Amino acid sequence: MEEIISMSHGNGGKKTSRLIDNIILPSFNNRELNILGDGALLNVSGSIAFSTDSFVIYPYFFPGGDIGKLSVCGTVNDLLMCGSVPKYLSLSLIIEEGFKIEDLKKIIDSISKTAKRANIKIVTGDTKVVDRGHGHGIYVNTAGIGERIEGIDLGRHRIEKGDKVIVSGSVGNHGVSILCARENLLEGNIISDCAPLNEVVNAALDFGQAIKILRDPTRGGVATTLNEFVENSSFSIELFEDKIPVDLNVKTACDLLGLDPLYSANEGKVLIVASADEADNIVNVLRKNEFSKDAEIIGEVVDYMPSKVILKSSFGGRRILDKLSHDILPRIC
Amino acid sequence: MEEIISMSHGNGGKKTSRLIDNIILPSFNNRELNILGDGALLNVSGSIAFSTDSFVIYPYFFPGGDIGKLSVCGTVNDLLMCGSVPKYLSLSLIIEEGFKIEDLKKIIDSISKTAKRANIKIVTGDTKVVDRGHGHGIYVNTAGIGERIEGIDLGRHRIEKGDKVIVSGSVGNHGVSILCARENLLEGNIISDCAPLNEVVNAALDFGQAIKILRDPTRGGVATTLNEFVENSSFSIELFEDKIPVDLNVKTACDLLGLDPLYSANEGKVLIVASADEADNIVNVLRKNEFSKDAEIIGEVVDYMPSKVILKSSFGGRRILDKLSHDILPRIC
Repeated sequence: MEEIISMSHGNGGKKTSRLIDNIILPSFNNRELNILGDGALLNVSGSIAFSTDSFVIYPYFFPGGDIGKLSVCGTVNDLLMCGSVPKYLSLSLIIEEGFKIEDLKKIIDSISKTAKRANIKIVTGDTKVVDRGHGHGIYVNTAGIGERIEGIDLGRHRIEKGDKVIVSGSVGNHGVSILCARENLLEGNIISDCAPLNEVVNAALDFGQAIKILRDPTRGGVATTLNEFVENSSFSIELFEDKIPVDLNVKTACDLLGLDPLYSANEGKVLIVASADEADNIVNVLRKNEFSKDAEIIGEVVDYMPSKVILKSSFGGRRILDKLSHDILPRIC
Repeated sequence: MEEIISMSHGNGGKKTSRLIDNIILPSFNNRELNILGDGALLNVSGSIAFSTDSFVIYPYFFPGGDIGKLSVCGTVNDLLMCGSVPKYLSLSLIIEEGFKIEDLKKIIDSISKTAKRANIKIVTGDTKVVDRGHGHGIYVNTAGIGERIEGIDLGRHRIEKGDKVIVSGSVGNHGVSILCARENLLEGNIISDCAPLNEVVNAALDFGQAIKILRDPTRGGVATTLNEFVENSSFSIELFEDKIPVDLNVKTACDLLGLDPLYSANEGKVLIVASADEADNIVNVLRKNEFSKDAEIIGEVVDYMPSKVILKSSFGGRRILDKLSHDILPRIC
């Protein structure tokens, strides 16, 4: 087997078959994938959630993960946010000519491990090779299918005055980690939070109708996602600055680099809007899980002005947090 | 609105929202997409087919189509080949910084038109921007969900001695068209066959159990796909060279350029293995459809040797057609 990817690995002929049979399939030992022709045949019951994401992150290996882990977590988390149980994943690779096969193996291995952890099956896929200079090592697309959980109704329409805003843990880690990895800053001591959120979301959904909406604050960060919750609505969200968990090293890096953790991407966090009467119970339950041990109530839904996210400082000052409008970070996801 | 894509169109903030709201959503006027959060909620019944493909074709506009049309047809056709009715499509764009927004609009428009024609709904999507020099204008990924047609059993396991091999029309057009477009040869007079095959496949599937397997011979061409039909089986496929439809201009271009249309990609053709007793009837029905008017029986399943594709010339000579093993064309899909 060669050591790097060449154009003929993407021509659909013998070398493509060999790449798929020797490098990709062995990691995904499941019946559906091995018999695949152009697609997988699957059984699902009732209604489903369907989501997709392309991952173009660079560097593709970073502290706390890699593009493979990220591409599984990203789609798994999106399916969870819809109130569904993630079941099936497609995997499509766009590999740049010259990419090391050793790195491809590591990424495939990471995809396989993360999929197992997230209890989702990779059932269909595609591999393309692009000429050198027309990629950035590897781009990965995943699309996923989840089975909707009955009796769950999530969405902006359920947000009401008095509801609490919960975050499952410290914010900004992924974005700051990638920036530091890319620029060789801070020696890799900021770790991406990249993680599948199955247990965290399941724990939250046990509270049934008390959960109004779920969303993972990825690109654009917490500030942008919360803006999407209240956009064109009669409500605003007031955030309590001193309640927002930010890891000390993330805070230090942000201070140093002039960044704002509220606009930095997260890949293993969830924002929850929940009924006021259950909010404390939800936080207490979340804190029992390793991926949400720092859960906090960070804000509440108010109606004294429409469609804004307002940050209330510990001194009582208020400022409006807009959606991300310019690039505070180089592209990271 | 700016005229070209900049990095901040991909940051997940205001400019991303504006791009999606102004350029992408208006073309896909469907309820599921407009209310989407991170995924779409869909109703499906029974068992489904699931398929994905990334499209990295260059040039992204070519005679007979563009990357948008291709990305819909590719996944629609894969779903059809599984014996399913295409229902829902995801759309993920990886756009290179500097891409013209005018071109993006054309591609989106083409995606929308092709999806309507193929009766599939675009229900969820994603947009990423990569730095200049790390893409090739635009890459598109689609993943699709189809509802399986009951009572249809397609697959290699159903192939038997005596079965006929049918192709729905002339072979090699897409691959040769792209090569000519890329190299500025033959003034665009070879048109890609890129098309959704819904009607063609539906007409074939009306023959029920007589249809053994369906496959669209894309990358690697007819020779590679037929090899996949008989790989590790006790059967071979004998092809009748003088029955294989090849358009005169494709033949001329292939002669000129030293190419073989049997290894050139198709994007609007289907290979069908069918019971001998129904093969003529199938061809007669297919010929009534505009996308399969040149359908022919081009070969049959034999058992005098295992696992080969054998080309029988008009003079009675025989040669073995292997899978595509080296690049006869620059990468085209």
